[in-house]
Amino acid sequence: MTQARVRLFEVCLRDGLQNESAMVPTDVKIAIAERLVDAGFEDIEITSFVRPRWIPQLADAPEVARRLNDRFRDEPVRLWALVPNAIGLERALDAGMRNVATFLSASETHNLKNVNRTVKESLAGLETVIGRAKAEGLGVRAYVSTAFGCPYEGWVDPKQVRRLAFALRDAGADVITLGDTTGMGHPAQVQSMVESLVEKGLPIDDLALHFHDTRGTAVANAWTAYQAGVTRFDGSVSGVGGCPYAPGAAGNASTQDLVHLFERMDGEQEPPEGKGPVTGIDLAKVGEIGRTLEDVLGRELTGRYHQYWKGHLQRKAKTA
Amino acid sequence: MTQARVRLFEVCLRDGLQNESAMVPTDVKIAIAERLVDAGFEDIEITSFVRPRWIPQLADAPEVARRLNDRFRDEPVRLWALVPNAIGLERALDAGMRNVATFLSASETHNLKNVNRTVKESLAGLETVIGRAKAEGLGVRAYVSTAFGCPYEGWVDPKQVRRLAFALRDAGADVITLGDTTGMGHPAQVQSMVESLVEKGLPIDDLALHFHDTRGTAVANAWTAYQAGVTRFDGSVSGVGGCPYAPGAAGNASTQDLVHLFERMDGEQEPPEGKGPVTGIDLAKVGEIGRTLEDVLGRELTGRYHQYWKGHLQRKAKTA
Repeated sequence: MTQARVRLFEVCLRDGLQNESAMVPTDVKIAIAERLVDAGFEDIEITSFVRPRWIPQLADAPEVARRLNDRFRDEPVRLWALVPNAIGLERALDAGMRNVATFLSASETHNLKNVNRTVKESLAGLETVIGRAKAEGLGVRAYVSTAFGCPYEGWVDPKQVRRLAFALRDAGADVITLGDTTGMGHPAQVQSMVESLVEKGLPIDDLALHFHDTRGTAVANAWTAYQAGVTRFDGSVSGVGGCPYAPGAAGNASTQDLVHLFERMDGEQEPPEGKGPVTGIDLAKVGEIGRTLEDVLGRELTGRYHQYWKGHLQRKAKTA
Repeated sequence: MTQARVRLFEVCLRDGLQNESAMVPTDVKIAIAERLVDAGFEDIEITSFVRPRWIPQLADAPEVARRLNDRFRDEPVRLWALVPNAIGLERALDAGMRNVATFLSASETHNLKNVNRTVKESLAGLETVIGRAKAEGLGVRAYVSTAFGCPYEGWVDPKQVRRLAFALRDAGADVITLGDTTGMGHPAQVQSMVESLVEKGLPIDDLALHFHDTRGTAVANAWTAYQAGVTRFDGSVSGVGGCPYAPGAAGNASTQDLVHLFERMDGEQEPPEGKGPVTGIDLAKVGEIGRTLEDVLGRELTGRYHQYWKGHLQRKAKTA
């Protein structure tokens, strides 16, 4: 049985690093991006054009963007940058970005704390930003954050999530990404959300899901969403990034956990060596990038497959 | 919508501790068992009657068993001990056990390395052990280990798993537990296995699943199995226990990850306080037991919900 191709969107350099306290040198970020391309990723979020003092870890955004866009100008890889507003978009354009991701939150409190605007104000701003980005011929992703729960408000109304998803779509966004910002999503909730969006007319190919593994549900959520037809998922190498609301908790869905999940759907007992037929990603190469990130960040990363793979190699080395 | 009740079987004191290098004092084990009962568990695997030199961590099996069976003689909790063979069963009976769990592996190599017998020899032995245990009026569980993959052989034939499950059932086992011994199970595989067992006549209420989170699939596997009708799952508090085949990798499915999953099926954004209506388990009390286990073992435990819950409390304490 041929399975639907899964398109992974790698966020370790942006969502990952912005939640790590360590400052990663620009040259290291460039080298990691090059290795991500080599490992098979075709969509990589490389940085964020927020104000440098908000997220000092990503203050080198213009340089990272310029160097990587030059480097990969003629290669089949899309580099993405987060832009919070019109100023961010202009900075991203100046730095040569060809794809941008915008964001707002589905919950008022989270949106206010995150960007100091009401959701309504954010949406109006993004409509302008997305319009301008599309006029410039950019690829545009729009995140609806806290789509499965808010760390301040708890429950988030799925109707509000749907309303924002369609408004951003109408504004011109190519892909709508529902962000489970603090890992509150449950598979039953994910299934119902995906089904209702599709029922109301969102093309499933234009929907992406961004999970966090804070409460251990990321892989179950991804598997449930895939069964409902979703093929776009965000991941972060080895689970780089944490949760700002719970020190020590897991962060983004770990890329290797997702690759392992999707490369074994056909009844294989082990994921294949080299680039997998479903994701196009080489698990071992991602593992090596994860080890580099551990060295750079000075801490163990918590992705399950990552830890298994490291332990497996360690044991093989001992018994060899 | 009323959801099927989930029956969790707690293995931290047996499968958990046998994979930890620390020696836990008998009094601590007794105290943890008492707190598990207080947290709502009705089935607790307390120890193993294997040869003490095989698993020195559980060498106090007779004392643990005697004390706990005395302590809970009149309470609605079932205490279980693992017995590898007829000698183990006699020792368990001598120590007052009223429920025992037997085991064999579905893969020849794992069975040989684990108990130095062929699968056929093991099955013949277990038929005698189960017959004797049932004649004594004991409750009997039978594990089929490596049911979703073998660390030596890789793929395990589902037909062999089914054959062993029905043979153990015919021998008199009340519950058949499929063990994903080293966390190789994939949700597609779990679904197909459960469906085929039910189709061939195994009552779904008599099937339990024992997952490990080595590759991050434990929660996805449990959710998939629940959708297919399974209501019995093994868990280990905070994920106590590791994987002997990959140092540093995650061990048993974390009990809190399972409780969180099953207590949020009805669309709740947070699991309830106190004992949950689906599992009967009090998540906060389990979290406190996990913290005690971290102190006793001298290491951080890796259960996702456990780490989230600890970080959440830590942050609340800071901002209070």
